[in-house]
Amino acid sequence: MDSAALLKAMKKIVDPDRILHNELERRLYSYDSSFLSVRGRYCPDIVVLPRSTAEVSGIMAFACKNGIPVTPRGAGSGETCGCVPARGGIVMDLSGWDTVEEVDVPNMQALVRPGVVHSRLNEHLARFGLFFPPDPGSTRMCTLGGMVANNSSGMRAVKYGTTEQYILGLEVVLPDGEVIVTGGQNCRSLKNASGINLTKIFVGSEGTLGVITLIRLRVWPRPRARGIAMACFDRLEQAPEAVLDVYRAGILPSGIEILDQSAIAAVNLYRPETNLPPVEAILLFEVDGNPASVEWEGREIEEIMKKNGAAVEWSTDPQRMAALWQGRSVVAAAAARLRPDGTRVFAGEDVCVPLGRVAEALRKIKDLGRQYDIVVVAYGHIGDGNIHTALVIDPDNPDEVARLDRLVDEIHRLAIDLGGTTTGEHGVGMVRSAYSPLEHGNALETMRRIKEALDPRGVMNPGKIYHPW
Amino acid sequence: MDSAALLKAMKKIVDPDRILHNELERRLYSYDSSFLSVRGRYCPDIVVLPRSTAEVSGIMAFACKNGIPVTPRGAGSGETCGCVPARGGIVMDLSGWDTVEEVDVPNMQALVRPGVVHSRLNEHLARFGLFFPPDPGSTRMCTLGGMVANNSSGMRAVKYGTTEQYILGLEVVLPDGEVIVTGGQNCRSLKNASGINLTKIFVGSEGTLGVITLIRLRVWPRPRARGIAMACFDRLEQAPEAVLDVYRAGILPSGIEILDQSAIAAVNLYRPETNLPPVEAILLFEVDGNPASVEWEGREIEEIMKKNGAAVEWSTDPQRMAALWQGRSVVAAAAARLRPDGTRVFAGEDVCVPLGRVAEALRKIKDLGRQYDIVVVAYGHIGDGNIHTALVIDPDNPDEVARLDRLVDEIHRLAIDLGGTTTGEHGVGMVRSAYSPLEHGNALETMRRIKEALDPRGVMNPGKIYHPW
Repeated sequence: MDSAALLKAMKKIVDPDRILHNELERRLYSYDSSFLSVRGRYCPDIVVLPRSTAEVSGIMAFACKNGIPVTPRGAGSGETCGCVPARGGIVMDLSGWDTVEEVDVPNMQALVRPGVVHSRLNEHLARFGLFFPPDPGSTRMCTLGGMVANNSSGMRAVKYGTTEQYILGLEVVLPDGEVIVTGGQNCRSLKNASGINLTKIFVGSEGTLGVITLIRLRVWPRPRARGIAMACFDRLEQAPEAVLDVYRAGILPSGIEILDQSAIAAVNLYRPETNLPPVEAILLFEVDGNPASVEWEGREIEEIMKKNGAAVEWSTDPQRMAALWQGRSVVAAAAARLRPDGTRVFAGEDVCVPLGRVAEALRKIKDLGRQYDIVVVAYGHIGDGNIHTALVIDPDNPDEVARLDRLVDEIHRLAIDLGGTTTGEHGVGMVRSAYSPLEHGNALETMRRIKEALDPRGVMNPGKIYHPW
Repeated sequence: MDSAALLKAMKKIVDPDRILHNELERRLYSYDSSFLSVRGRYCPDIVVLPRSTAEVSGIMAFACKNGIPVTPRGAGSGETCGCVPARGGIVMDLSGWDTVEEVDVPNMQALVRPGVVHSRLNEHLARFGLFFPPDPGSTRMCTLGGMVANNSSGMRAVKYGTTEQYILGLEVVLPDGEVIVTGGQNCRSLKNASGINLTKIFVGSEGTLGVITLIRLRVWPRPRARGIAMACFDRLEQAPEAVLDVYRAGILPSGIEILDQSAIAAVNLYRPETNLPPVEAILLFEVDGNPASVEWEGREIEEIMKKNGAAVEWSTDPQRMAALWQGRSVVAAAAARLRPDGTRVFAGEDVCVPLGRVAEALRKIKDLGRQYDIVVVAYGHIGDGNIHTALVIDPDNPDEVARLDRLVDEIHRLAIDLGGTTTGEHGVGMVRSAYSPLEHGNALETMRRIKEALDPRGVMNPGKIYHPW
């Protein structure tokens, strides 16, 4: 379809103010936070900003009839090209549709539109003494629609699980424009065993099965207390073993994060006042719950860390906790400081391995970095085996980029070899779809059958997950 | 296909010792625990007891080619006719395939075959200081395969969620005999964001999409301490309000159960030594965690109950806890005592309503019982709005059975009207499929599309969920 006809058609559905079609505007939608999106040129033919289910439905019905690809998009904070239009067509920017429709306090749930930003939701819920536990690093940016589409998790997944655990129901516009409600069409109960679980098929489907237009999510009472322990280890291998000992003691912290030697160095360069000790690994434990529980678990963790040879500091003082947590919160931004002319690129950044293989994974990833002569900063959610690796390169140097590609491939294959996955929480999108056959074998064909059943014309975010792009 | 040919074909796949084909043996497979199965005559043509994935695959490939219905079955403890062969054909009894293949302690997971009984799994895991949190009332009977197929929950769902939260991956034999592994073909990580979530589509699909042959489940460290509070209320309405106050205080008990006046009376008749006070409602709270936490939450719950006008007793003594919990654990068996010539039938027993509507639901269900002159005993998982109703009738009295049917229909419609569901945890099967259109509207058609994509010949447990039978 030529661009004039497409523009005309879109104007019949959404207000012209919410249509972007000049080249500069469209180019802005070629990107997410992945390195791949910087290298490619995946420009939409048009961008629309719908603000109602009827508009989304109208766009999908038109696109489906005419075989035009549609890629839904939230904040663009993803690292997989998930919201980048691999085949052009329409990008549907939902980030401005950001109403918290309802906080249903007695029923412990909330209804939100896809564009609501995560931190804003939790600020809103705090007024009612409630919170939405999943806690991605991009909290001030990422949208609930994106979180559902990618089954986001983050630092608290170790105790609270991933986004999917909190999604009770969804309003979804199917690829042909039909609107369905999953989880019961008028349901407000916390459990529901009626029918196959459609909600969970849309969560994590990365916009390939439909457009999420309303989210019914479970919220929880805010824990009354919180405490943080920082443990410093001379040898990297001690850290994963100490984590297992905490589990063995029957303690489930609300977060367990690791910083390796490079991450510590980067943080000290970026924020010298942090003054982290130059050890091989730092673990940060967050525990939450009632005050008595937090105090008890803090003391236990202190004991366990000491037995594992770590220097440890425990605090429940808000200012001191913020200081202890600072290292973790700035590491993503700090990584590039290890190489003044370098840029941290998002590629191979999200492997997840079995808990018992974390030490091995960390060592091997560092070795691979040396082998390919690329700076690797390792940190992340060690409590569930989810390791983030910041790779720092000069993106304008083709040789480095070629080495990066080989390093990323080796990191991905290493994770699978160790019984893990190329992605613990960020998803597949375009950047990891080449590994789908290796990860899933013939189960990938079952995924494709579901995709084809719901999207027989293949208009919904094509070029992701199911086939190498 | 005639029965001799079917028998001959099955003998080529499984050992003849594991094939049942005489009429008496087959009749035993006409039943589960639902009242409907007692009234119907849903007899399989043959029963096979496979003990390997290859056997299950061989049976499915044959059945699919020949259009023969296959119904997988665990312990038969379900209450929905889910494992009853609505269209005859083959029943696949998996209850004897009960190996715990592996407890992977460092990775906090276990691999089990579908026939493993829930209580046996937890006994086994206890040796490693681990447990599998979902806790159905049928723990000594129900199989893990059945729990996954029905997404079981039970008393601890209020804190720990339902079975699906613990299922990391599955080996599934598809209707055509193909074997897939969900959650990553060689994966042992605790998180995995690769691909759409096939695992969650099979969990709760009630055997309509494939046969589960291996379950990879997440296990947790056993909590170190436990405590139980019993609170007695003069008026039924006080109880749901007190539950909300506990949540408002930021406390998430591991169980919150209710017994109404009839349930209390039934327990006192069945076990006079229990000696429950003859009030309108009793709440039982279980809290678990570390010892400090349990003590703190126990005291808080005591205070909250007193403020809500209840007499309350709190205990962490194992013997006293067992005595306090006794009323709850015998109520299902005790219900029939309210009417010496009556039988407790499983029908309309599993509605779930929004937390804020529990009091209203309880009152209305009791009123309906009076209106239809049928004894209704109400109890269950009030913490997530899941109310169990024991209906006591003379099943040989056609007039009573006719009244029962009308009462059950009213209870189901009431639940939906209140923003709930006909089933909080037991599932749809045959007994509630008539309500699927009302619960799901056009989303039911999306479920059917997925069903047809995975089972185009319709051989996998037909007559359930998607269409009234």
